[in-house]
Amino acid sequence: MNALLLKIDSRDTVAIITEASRKGDVVDGITLLSDIPQGHKVALQDMQKGDEVIRYGVVLGYLLEDVRKGSWINENSLELPLQPSLESLSFSEPEEVILMQPKRTTFEGFENPNGGFAGTRNILAITTTVQCVSGVVDQLVKRIKAELLPRYPNVDGVVAINHAYGCGVAINAPDAVIPIRSIKNTIKNPNFGGQVMVVGLGCEKLTVDKLLSDEENTPENVIILQDYPGYGPMMEALLMMAETKLKKLDQRRRKTLPLEKLCVGMQCGGSDAFSGVTANPSAGYASDLLVSGGATVMFSEVTEVRDGVHLLAERCKDEEALKKLVAEIGWYDEYLAKGSVDRSANPTPGNKKGGLSNIVEKAMGSIVKSGHAPIVQVIGPGELPTKKGLIFAATPASDIVCGPSQLASGMSVQVFMTGRGTPYGLAEAPVIKVSSRNALKHMWQDLIDLDAGSIATGEETVEVVGERLFNLILDVASGKKPFSEQYGLNNFLCFFNPAPIT
Amino acid sequence: MNALLLKIDSRDTVAIITEASRKGDVVDGITLLSDIPQGHKVALQDMQKGDEVIRYGVVLGYLLEDVRKGSWINENSLELPLQPSLESLSFSEPEEVILMQPKRTTFEGFENPNGGFAGTRNILAITTTVQCVSGVVDQLVKRIKAELLPRYPNVDGVVAINHAYGCGVAINAPDAVIPIRSIKNTIKNPNFGGQVMVVGLGCEKLTVDKLLSDEENTPENVIILQDYPGYGPMMEALLMMAETKLKKLDQRRRKTLPLEKLCVGMQCGGSDAFSGVTANPSAGYASDLLVSGGATVMFSEVTEVRDGVHLLAERCKDEEALKKLVAEIGWYDEYLAKGSVDRSANPTPGNKKGGLSNIVEKAMGSIVKSGHAPIVQVIGPGELPTKKGLIFAATPASDIVCGPSQLASGMSVQVFMTGRGTPYGLAEAPVIKVSSRNALKHMWQDLIDLDAGSIATGEETVEVVGERLFNLILDVASGKKPFSEQYGLNNFLCFFNPAPIT
Ligand SMILES: [Ca+2]
Ligand SMILES: [Ca+2]
Ligand SMILES: [Ca+2]
Ligand SMILES: [Ca+2]
Ligand SMILES: [Ca+2]
Repeated sequence: MNALLLKIDSRDTVAIITEASRKGDVVDGITLLSDIPQGHKVALQDMQKGDEVIRYGVVLGYLLEDVRKGSWINENSLELPLQPSLESLSFSEPEEVILMQPKRTTFEGFENPNGGFAGTRNILAITTTVQCVSGVVDQLVKRIKAELLPRYPNVDGVVAINHAYGCGVAINAPDAVIPIRSIKNTIKNPNFGGQVMVVGLGCEKLTVDKLLSDEENTPENVIILQDYPGYGPMMEALLMMAETKLKKLDQRRRKTLPLEKLCVGMQCGGSDAFSGVTANPSAGYASDLLVSGGATVMFSEVTEVRDGVHLLAERCKDEEALKKLVAEIGWYDEYLAKGSVDRSANPTPGNKKGGLSNIVEKAMGSIVKSGHAPIVQVIGPGELPTKKGLIFAATPASDIVCGPSQLASGMSVQVFMTGRGTPYGLAEAPVIKVSSRNALKHMWQDLIDLDAGSIATGEETVEVVGERLFNLILDVASGKKPFSEQYGLNNFLCFFNPAPIT
Repeated sequence: MNALLLKIDSRDTVAIITEASRKGDVVDGITLLSDIPQGHKVALQDMQKGDEVIRYGVVLGYLLEDVRKGSWINENSLELPLQPSLESLSFSEPEEVILMQPKRTTFEGFENPNGGFAGTRNILAITTTVQCVSGVVDQLVKRIKAELLPRYPNVDGVVAINHAYGCGVAINAPDAVIPIRSIKNTIKNPNFGGQVMVVGLGCEKLTVDKLLSDEENTPENVIILQDYPGYGPMMEALLMMAETKLKKLDQRRRKTLPLEKLCVGMQCGGSDAFSGVTANPSAGYASDLLVSGGATVMFSEVTEVRDGVHLLAERCKDEEALKKLVAEIGWYDEYLAKGSVDRSANPTPGNKKGGLSNIVEKAMGSIVKSGHAPIVQVIGPGELPTKKGLIFAATPASDIVCGPSQLASGMSVQVFMTGRGTPYGLAEAPVIKVSSRNALKHMWQDLIDLDAGSIATGEETVEVVGERLFNLILDVASGKKPFSEQYGLNNFLCFFNPAPIT
């Protein structure tokens, strides 16, 4: 295939090259001055030391040396610009955006007794108060799968909501609110059908009343292992409670529901330079279709949007959203500072290998997954949204922490964009994997659900791939199984706990 | 059963009551002035506001009110004493201690090719560089258990060394050294037979070279998922590598080995007031027998020994050990301060319900599990000891973090003392559970391996129960299965990561 140069904004002074190319090759009229790896940046003009390097119409950094047209621009070429200050952000009405209306406006989901978002799956979730009981609950889940689940064909699965929290933690630390609300809200995920089953030990710090209301905290919903005379009796009681819950879940059926009932999460991981021009813009287009159709879409990953926070600020629908944005991003700045690190901790070596020079470039590529809709609400990690539309859920970028955080906030299907490739999946909600490059899809035919690489080759547009992704999201929400779900590739839950371990 | 008052040191002004008793009951000649729950403290004399309350010969706190002989002394009665300062600690030769010689001086273990400690089990461990691959590795382990393991009868099991580290973390943060060395050293745990199998993704921050030496980092030992064309081929390669390792492990046989080859970990969790007079002193006695027989014993749990640090300092064998003790405890003080918490985060509500009024009382009860031997070395979380004998491994007290830390440091069998009861277990090493009270053993006949409650009733001595525990440790090290191993009750690994998530 012939290499192309992908320029995104008319102001850009660099473009990325779609194929690895050799010194002397002429690509889109530019002679390359060195070998350049796939996805890396090429200077579109002669520039001098100190000049702005612009991509996405945004300053990625300042040149450390003079460069000539056709030079390779990478992480060693650039000095980072200053991080946008939070103090300078102030509210102004966002520009009006007119979003395309989607052709499909319904999906087949599981309505929930308490209202709210609908499920895309029908799952029995068994939540633990503390990690001490996880060994017992893992054995329980094994037995439920073998002995009970076959008798309840309308139930899709059973999951243990195991986590590393609950005891041996500083439960009164200011930041303990984050893991506690994350676990508490996960119990209410729309995929769990409003059924509550909690297993506690009896002497943990995270007592059941911190997770359940008085109405929910009953012998029908809660088993405390220290109350049972031994392993045999506790397992018997657990199986009996599980069967009661399975009976109720088994009565649920999918029905046609409006998109207002759907909550979709967007995440990227193992990103490369293509992510920001193929997979993420397609996700952004699908997000806009979902939002204009009435659905709720969450995007996240604080450290990846930090350097574009001013762009998010401009899209905040009201002053409340802006204030919360500043508060959450400011909290994260302090959290990183306490650990003596800063934004340079991101990107990863894999990101850099893929052509992402620094965190500004990564941020721009990450933010495009949120499309163009206004941000109606900003929430902290594991908080519940109270509005419908586009939500910024301020979680870590870490794939395995962002996932559980979004689950806690009500996400019932996740879209995961990847450039380098990861087999990431969740037992609690289906995960759709979108590749940024044809090469990855060719390599991982049986792991990538949708390829956005055709945008890089010029064969398809963002709109075409974006609408295809929108349709796939609704299909998966309605029961179609992405690859990770077919194989049972599930990452364990890692709830965000910024407070100390004791 | 008649209630007794258990006084530990001749200087003590309080004693704990062995049974719940009523106001007016006369116990060991003292008339109780209120109802007093089991395991709680009774004033042995009239005392005034501000007086020292002494147990273990140590000041637990100062009275907030006048009390009379027979009063109930609990967490509401006491003001905490000042925490011992680290600056005041200086080295002096520890008092010579003469330890009992054990009758048994060998066990049946698996020698390792690289020398060092011997295994108590013969396990294939598959280590992940990053959480992204855990879904694939979990499926792999399932298939190995079903398809391969039955053909290798001398291999006890296969475990995934999954963890929440590897990417989405601040890998250059000063504290990142802790999780990295913990994962790196876990690969070398004596129970894994020197076989190395590491599964990476390909774009993670924790690259394989951070875990393995150049000699180990070979295609025979490492699989990078992004190098394989899809799920089918990667699973095939993984199964093939696993089988090669299983063949080697299957040739290992137990042989009679001296205690120098054994590394035992001590831990307590869900403690009560009996823990410090029954289970933990028995563990201390067993520890002394092990050490005098040549074995290495690790004890841990920084927050639980913090208030008795001056007692540990007196037992440090050399100045190096003392300096490291001060450094590790000082680091932890700062770590807690950064999270705006202090030592009052411990004990738990369950501890208090069980009669432990504050962290000083908990510390005294926790330290007795280390017996009387001198401390030959102090190591940080996940570090490898270089000496044999009694080691203080400065890990968090959290059961589920202390366990993996000790595994990383070479522990191959753990003794776990509990008062309230927990079904805790590890797939990587057998865990022996010791109860502090008869009531718990009666309640959990099929979960508690050894009961130390007979010490509280006066039926048996610490020495008798301690020697029984010593024998059980050697039996389990030689292959006998404790309950948690019989049922497969295994807590997932939670390596200590004090550095930020990104
Ligand atoms: Ca990302
Ligand atoms: Ca991510
Ligand atoms: Ca403990
Ligand atoms: Ca503890
Ligand atoms: Ca513990």
